[in-house]
Amino acid sequence: MTIQISEEKTMDDHGRVYNFSAGPCMMPMEVLEECRGDFMNFQGTGMSVMEMSHRSKDFMNIFAEAEANLREVLNVPQTHKTMFLQGGATLQFSCVPLNMFGSGKTRADFAVTGQWGEKAYKESGKYGIANLACNTKPQKFSYIPPVSEWAISDPSQTAFLHYTANETVNGVEFQYTPDIKDIPLVADMSSNFITRPVDVSKHAVIYAGAQKNCGPAGNTILMVDQKYLGKEMPICPTYCSWKAFADADSMYNTPACYSIYVTGVYLKYTKAKGGVTYWEEQSLKKSQRIYDIIDGSDGFFTNPVQKDARSRVNVPFQIQGGNEELEKKFLAEAQKKKLYTLSGHRSVGGIRASLYNGMPMRGVELLAEHMKDFMSENAA
Amino acid sequence: MTIQISEEKTMDDHGRVYNFSAGPCMMPMEVLEECRGDFMNFQGTGMSVMEMSHRSKDFMNIFAEAEANLREVLNVPQTHKTMFLQGGATLQFSCVPLNMFGSGKTRADFAVTGQWGEKAYKESGKYGIANLACNTKPQKFSYIPPVSEWAISDPSQTAFLHYTANETVNGVEFQYTPDIKDIPLVADMSSNFITRPVDVSKHAVIYAGAQKNCGPAGNTILMVDQKYLGKEMPICPTYCSWKAFADADSMYNTPACYSIYVTGVYLKYTKAKGGVTYWEEQSLKKSQRIYDIIDGSDGFFTNPVQKDARSRVNVPFQIQGGNEELEKKFLAEAQKKKLYTLSGHRSVGGIRASLYNGMPMRGVELLAEHMKDFMSENAA
Repeated sequence: MTIQISEEKTMDDHGRVYNFSAGPCMMPMEVLEECRGDFMNFQGTGMSVMEMSHRSKDFMNIFAEAEANLREVLNVPQTHKTMFLQGGATLQFSCVPLNMFGSGKTRADFAVTGQWGEKAYKESGKYGIANLACNTKPQKFSYIPPVSEWAISDPSQTAFLHYTANETVNGVEFQYTPDIKDIPLVADMSSNFITRPVDVSKHAVIYAGAQKNCGPAGNTILMVDQKYLGKEMPICPTYCSWKAFADADSMYNTPACYSIYVTGVYLKYTKAKGGVTYWEEQSLKKSQRIYDIIDGSDGFFTNPVQKDARSRVNVPFQIQGGNEELEKKFLAEAQKKKLYTLSGHRSVGGIRASLYNGMPMRGVELLAEHMKDFMSENAA
Repeated sequence: MTIQISEEKTMDDHGRVYNFSAGPCMMPMEVLEECRGDFMNFQGTGMSVMEMSHRSKDFMNIFAEAEANLREVLNVPQTHKTMFLQGGATLQFSCVPLNMFGSGKTRADFAVTGQWGEKAYKESGKYGIANLACNTKPQKFSYIPPVSEWAISDPSQTAFLHYTANETVNGVEFQYTPDIKDIPLVADMSSNFITRPVDVSKHAVIYAGAQKNCGPAGNTILMVDQKYLGKEMPICPTYCSWKAFADADSMYNTPACYSIYVTGVYLKYTKAKGGVTYWEEQSLKKSQRIYDIIDGSDGFFTNPVQKDARSRVNVPFQIQGGNEELEKKFLAEAQKKKLYTLSGHRSVGGIRASLYNGMPMRGVELLAEHMKDFMSENAA
């Protein structure tokens, strides 16, 4: 079932708001409508997808289609196995060293450009030597140093180098794949996954929670070059073994069926829209609209991140350098215009507009207007 | 929003079937209807529950209500912390030793009465000494030996004793809480959780996937006596640390929000129906109906489990001692009557009727009639 609807009309019909949450977050209306339409009886099977045995033919078809669409939209090479797991990026922070340190190399490099990368770095230290290739914490995670300046370890001792493609809290994004010779590259793509093309072949491992750009929370997507499978540390929990899940096609145990199904509908929708290049175009347009207002505000709005490292999907900003009273007023007035969940992460404060795939251009336009109106009313 | 509907009418309206899957499985119509009704806009919030930030007030309320209802229906004492996690029982197979062996005691006892208990036993062996207190595998998991016959270890060296309250594949269920003095008791209740009252206070730890009796796949419920928190082994992944999740009220990272929400609706429905004693009454009635037919069939149908250990929720049986041709015919004819997913687990074959909370009495009646009709047509 595919429903074609006008976004504006349906937003209004359902009394929906524009939700700028950093995740879980807004999803395309068409994706939600399709899931709702099939909620009680999926395409004549007589069951909700939630009720299907994960080993049933019907669910296996749903799963296979989701996986095929994932592989197609990201052009995943045959060398890489794709999996749907649970536990989010946080569980993968442990799975990466548990699966990669069993090879005999028990050292790893970390490019820490935000709070999530720092967590991954700390977790790896439980299982081997974690080395900071770079760390911009002293500069408040405001830029990405060039790879040429990173302190990269001896490849003969180093199992992997880890980077965080987009830092959700700090609004810092890699605009390129770091070119690291001879060390397997591992990427946490949780917050910009499916927002633009990625050269999967340059990565040993990519992992991402689905809940920002391609589905609900509870589904973690993993892509692993098969040559890194089967080298777990002996203490690796079976649930954390990529090989166990690769061999069982993600069904070593009961998967998060409904979350995988919704992700599949989202990926099908992505294909229909033109693939990840469509989302890339949208995200550039949406983020540029907001950054232009910030940069043209004469310091009324400020974003702390160096321009070449600014995130297309998380735009944090302050008002008058952190005027909390004005920021509170900005948020309250935004909400009256149906612009929700715009406060910054509790660790950094301020405002944060997350502009994931599910946020339509109209929501961004309304936010842009609100910013301009607010500035003209409140700038000293 | 609560919708009161006739089950028969709604089943027919939606063209639904009776689904005897061992999980994920059938859910009550009212639970599904409520979730569908709120799918695009949860109670005037302007968002689907799937789209809500897990830190938003709206989702925190959903979460708190689900947790409060869980505690109420199972009468969970204040000593025990309740949590909603991901990864299923399989991840807990590792979490149990990872959290319990850090105390210094690195030995554990296992009562293995089916395939799932055996998996838990094997996983613990990675982290310490796993001892078989009992193991009915040589008897094809057909009974539960009395606790007095178990080989229980010295409590001064033993971190816990693990049992599986219901074995989904083999149809074996504990009808009582094993009385183990001086060793903390850990129970995997994945398949009979919320089907009857449990004395939580007698357990150090209870864990259960929600996808059998109280929700969709992707939500794992955990109850831990707080005195066992904070004693993880140093190699315990942070995601596996019960203390990390207890301290963060299950939100150390993004939880499986939608699965938790649906579980919450299911628990609210449970309360409205009269609590777990209602489900207990139902499950006794439903399973008795099928066992009576098996036992009265003069060996046409057989169930291999000793009567006092028979499961109320998974009823495996064979036709003419394993006549595969007849069993195939039985399944095909059942499907024509809208009775689905009745084949046995791939490891044991035959038929299996799972009679979880979501399976209405009418489905069981239709199955009972089918069994009787099939016997009179096919008995030699």
